[in-house]
Amino acid sequence: MLARVQASFDRQGMMTTLGVAVTAVERGKVWMSLGHDERFTQQHGFLHAGAVASVLDTACGYAAFSVMPPEAAVLTATYTVNLLAPAAGERFTITGEVVRAGRTLVVCRGEAFTDADTRPFAVMQATMTAVYGKAGISG
Amino acid sequence: MLARVQASFDRQGMMTTLGVAVTAVERGKVWMSLGHDERFTQQHGFLHAGAVASVLDTACGYAAFSVMPPEAAVLTATYTVNLLAPAAGERFTITGEVVRAGRTLVVCRGEAFTDADTRPFAVMQATMTAVYGKAGISG
Amino acid sequence: MLARVQASFDRQGMMTTLGVAVTAVERGKVWMSLGHDERFTQQHGFLHAGAVASVLDTACGYAAFSVMPPEAAVLTATYTVNLLAPAAGERFTITGEVVRAGRTLVVCRGEAFTDADTRPFAVMQATMTAVYGKAGISG
Amino acid sequence: MLARVQASFDRQGMMTTLGVAVTAVERGKVWMSLGHDERFTQQHGFLHAGAVASVLDTACGYAAFSVMPPEAAVLTATYTVNLLAPAAGERFTITGEVVRAGRTLVVCRGEAFTDADTRPFAVMQATMTAVYGKAGISG
Repeated sequence: MLARVQASFDRQGMMTTLGVAVTAVERGKVWMSLGHDERFTQQHGFLHAGAVASVLDTACGYAAFSVMPPEAAVLTATYTVNLLAPAAGERFTITGEVVRAGRTLVVCRGEAFTDADTRPFAVMQATMTAVYGKAGISG
Repeated sequence: MLARVQASFDRQGMMTTLGVAVTAVERGKVWMSLGHDERFTQQHGFLHAGAVASVLDTACGYAAFSVMPPEAAVLTATYTVNLLAPAAGERFTITGEVVRAGRTLVVCRGEAFTDADTRPFAVMQATMTAVYGKAGISG
Repeated sequence: MLARVQASFDRQGMMTTLGVAVTAVERGKVWMSLGHDERFTQQHGFLHAGAVASVLDTACGYAAFSVMPPEAAVLTATYTVNLLAPAAGERFTITGEVVRAGRTLVVCRGEAFTDADTRPFAVMQATMTAVYGKAGISG
Repeated sequence: MLARVQASFDRQGMMTTLGVAVTAVERGKVWMSLGHDERFTQQHGFLHAGAVASVLDTACGYAAFSVMPPEAAVLTATYTVNLLAPAAGERFTITGEVVRAGRTLVVCRGEAFTDADTRPFAVMQATMTAVYGKAGISG
């Protein structure tokens, strides 16, 4: 499963560009890690919420993918992200976890942490779609 | 107002890195433009939803900023994005528009378009916060 | 189409109990009407956001239903509602409109208005699912 | 704190009409209970998502209220609800819990359970606002 997630992840230009690493994968839960990067800041100098949301979305997507049948591909249908505090820190841990999975829709929650705080600085509620048999879409 | 938006925008490393341009600003509405970029793709080769959502979020943020008092800074509290189709195209137009503004919270809608389609391929509903008198936070 | 929407609507105990009426249906757009009711207030005496959200959800659901194939049933997957002002008034107009429809997912927007204001006091972004061939689920 | 929550709750016509009970309150977490009711069904005979969302919203609101200063009133700014399965059952437990609280915005999560399943059938991510010194708004 880790191999399947890693193979798909490695095809994501954006994750490579952001310097994100998959640190652990369980059935239904994924951990990722990223660092502060001057190239991806917002106007106040913190890591841009868009970068954080991208990784939360990706972590939720792979959490969903990890419980889908092998022939399914995963797409994000919609997510809601709450930004609770600035992404102030050097290194961030991002998790995605399945809340409940149907055949087509899988609902996940994501959380983003700095090293210095056990409370998340961003949380996500995401709806992922399993896509079956669509040409050119896998992983 | 355009100058205020542009000045804040120019301090966002992420917008520069994504190659985003502010194409127009009215009171309560902002237009932005970005192009396809191999560095920001997802696993199927399309522009990553995270990149699209980042620009939608930014367009909504500046739409909100454009109706706030001059002393306010803008932060994103939360947004919901729906991804209706892949970001398939070379060039994308992203808009953000104020739905209704209070003193503290401003609610906006964003839409993302490819050149080839009048229907949006992504839509956002965002809640922005005006921040007053917080040291180090402006724009 | 109006008949199909009305027939399904009439089976919703909650819409009857809330006193909601379908006032118009077009392909992709639905208008509903409800009045202030002491039985459905929140702690400050205004109509409860939950009542408003229920009608917004229903209007979005039928807007989606109106563009689905006849054999499909409609279920709400997820929605985000922003409450922009209290539901202060005697009579409210609620609209639901399709933004973009796929075979399985249909994304809609809803707006709620009082008689006294052209700006919405609540807005919704909703994701509806078409369900095919599920026993006991129609309309 | 329970008394403060209960006093505000008792002023909500809608909660009385829905037959909702506050079953427990801790600092930052609230439990509520409601039963199936023919008056509040959707077109397939299950409890309407709008009724479930109203109680989730209320549980999140009081969870937020329980961590706010005594002079604050609580209003819902926005929430996202995912409906994971029909509300099929006779009795439902609804929880609301604070994720993180600022002075103005408090972000909460809500979950809805039937008696027969440990997995939630609906989940909410909600943004509550503390209102200070607004005439006629308390609790």
